[in-house]
Amino acid sequence: MKRFKNIMTLSGKLIENVVLIEKRAIEELYNTSFYGRPRGETLELSLPESAYLIYMGKIKVESEGKELDFKHFFLKASSVSKNFELLYIVYKDLRERGYYIQPGVTGFRVYPRGGHPGKTPAEFFVFVTSERIPLLLSDLKAHLDTVENLKKRLVLSIVDEESEITYYEVKRTNPSGTCELKPDKPLSMATLLEDRCMVWDSETSSILLNGGFFGKPMDEGHLQLSLIESCYLLKKGFLEIEQRNHVRLDFAGFSRLASLIESDFMIKYAVYEKLRNHGLVPKTGFKFGTHFRVYKNFKTPAELSHSDYLVHAVEQKHVFSLQQLSRAVRLANSVRKEMIYGNGADFFVIGRMRL
Amino acid sequence: MKRFKNIMTLSGKLIENVVLIEKRAIEELYNTSFYGRPRGETLELSLPESAYLIYMGKIKVESEGKELDFKHFFLKASSVSKNFELLYIVYKDLRERGYYIQPGVTGFRVYPRGGHPGKTPAEFFVFVTSERIPLLLSDLKAHLDTVENLKKRLVLSIVDEESEITYYEVKRTNPSGTCELKPDKPLSMATLLEDRCMVWDSETSSILLNGGFFGKPMDEGHLQLSLIESCYLLKKGFLEIEQRNHVRLDFAGFSRLASLIESDFMIKYAVYEKLRNHGLVPKTGFKFGTHFRVYKNFKTPAELSHSDYLVHAVEQKHVFSLQQLSRAVRLANSVRKEMIYGNGADFFVIGRMRL
Repeated sequence: MKRFKNIMTLSGKLIENVVLIEKRAIEELYNTSFYGRPRGETLELSLPESAYLIYMGKIKVESEGKELDFKHFFLKASSVSKNFELLYIVYKDLRERGYYIQPGVTGFRVYPRGGHPGKTPAEFFVFVTSERIPLLLSDLKAHLDTVENLKKRLVLSIVDEESEITYYEVKRTNPSGTCELKPDKPLSMATLLEDRCMVWDSETSSILLNGGFFGKPMDEGHLQLSLIESCYLLKKGFLEIEQRNHVRLDFAGFSRLASLIESDFMIKYAVYEKLRNHGLVPKTGFKFGTHFRVYKNFKTPAELSHSDYLVHAVEQKHVFSLQQLSRAVRLANSVRKEMIYGNGADFFVIGRMRL
Repeated sequence: MKRFKNIMTLSGKLIENVVLIEKRAIEELYNTSFYGRPRGETLELSLPESAYLIYMGKIKVESEGKELDFKHFFLKASSVSKNFELLYIVYKDLRERGYYIQPGVTGFRVYPRGGHPGKTPAEFFVFVTSERIPLLLSDLKAHLDTVENLKKRLVLSIVDEESEITYYEVKRTNPSGTCELKPDKPLSMATLLEDRCMVWDSETSSILLNGGFFGKPMDEGHLQLSLIESCYLLKKGFLEIEQRNHVRLDFAGFSRLASLIESDFMIKYAVYEKLRNHGLVPKTGFKFGTHFRVYKNFKTPAELSHSDYLVHAVEQKHVFSLQQLSRAVRLANSVRKEMIYGNGADFFVIGRMRL
């Protein structure tokens, strides 16, 4: 173990869930390395700070008249502080990457490289959690509101079962594109089949495909539309839709039928409509395991390059499995796309972060 | 549309869910191109075959005395045959890739390139489904048993909402490796903390890490073990484990506690134990969104190269979401690993297939 034998070890006491260290620690630990917070004649250290400094041989801590070595301090801290192990693992990692850190409500406030308390404001709020703990979208939004109000950046640090840490940055986003379909004449009738629609007329097929990248050509004359594409075109008045028995469908009737086929249809639809209204072109993201892949600059199907975003529609009451989030972000990054979660109200981009 | 104007169009009748074509179709469609099945004086065509041949202009089909054009045949077929659209999309795709195809119970029997009915046996059984239909592991196993008994290969063709097809091959697998931990002395005591264990003794830490790639060093003296690693080492008698209050845990006690922390602990454990007993080294696959990443040839942590498999533990009664399966396989392939699903009884490798 690394020990700093040339400086005298400082002494402190564990009192509930903080350690109070003798006065000269203010000079030796705070003024030079920004550990702890001066409290009058003492320096107050959090439990992760203390465990780290015991491990580094810089402090000695006693509790009830007995000195606690690293193991016993760690066991004690782990008993009195929920998630202590997670906090310690992340604290040690950030500190060893050269960041100065202060405790925060749900994790740490982290100073930018070259910055420190008293010189610069903190840049990141690091929220520490375990891969095992499901994350509520509502909680994530609340964290983000707090952090953005303070003009900081939100970092999720997720500790996996083997104590490896992955850092993600979460931001609000509001993507937009350049595609606008303006058919200059009323389009024809499509038929709702089992779980997709068919456009039988080749001119309409061509306008929809070339003007807005709607549907997939089944052959030279016929265009297959997904339920969501059909629903959007119906609502916009660009297409009429009937059932196989020739009964006409309006938006309400169509979305009712679509929701029977796909229970989360309306959740997806809200996001689809918002993306289209912002000039973006969403197509199915099935091959990437998300609801949509999204093109920013669509001109014609022939000039199409790679899509820019993967977008997954989530309810307001969505609960993230961090394992699935990890897989989604990893996959998006491996194909150089941004991973976005969203609903009718907000979009969030979540990306892997290399601190 | 492509039409073969130089051959006279053949005539047939739609009778329930097959089309019967006049006798000379046996020569013109079956003997040369392996469409349909000869039935005495007629050739019987399935609905997808018939729709395709109407589209190609090779046959005319009447029903109740009236000729059905492509649109009306398609609508009719879609009403009488469940999943007709999916079957047609896949049929057309395979046929246009140059394969000869015969109908099967849940999809198609497909002949190898260069082969055809009467010359070679079929090579693939293609199971056709939609991304919207959840897939039961028990159904997948039943298909695989049938197909493997006939010495064929099982292909899943999944049609997404926009009618794009992804082909996957499913096989049983039985991976094995070369790692065997043989500690030559009883190892020391570890402590179960909140949701991981800590080995405090540096010699034990080193044996476990270097001999079997167990755990993650927290620092130079201490090794953190995941719950699953701890449980395995405990069961094998390689490690003793106590709680923070010094109460010793046996396998039953430990796995009970671990299952409280992680409800699917025993499902994962069964797979972990099987992999370890086969000489493989499983580590968490969290960064890939799966339960394990698995190393085949482990020597020492320093010589470690990339892992070979991603393994996800599933219950016997597991139901696959095809969207999640798509994401898992895509991610595994993007990092050049095999995607394996398994439980204590079986392992299945699922890979993208380029037909």
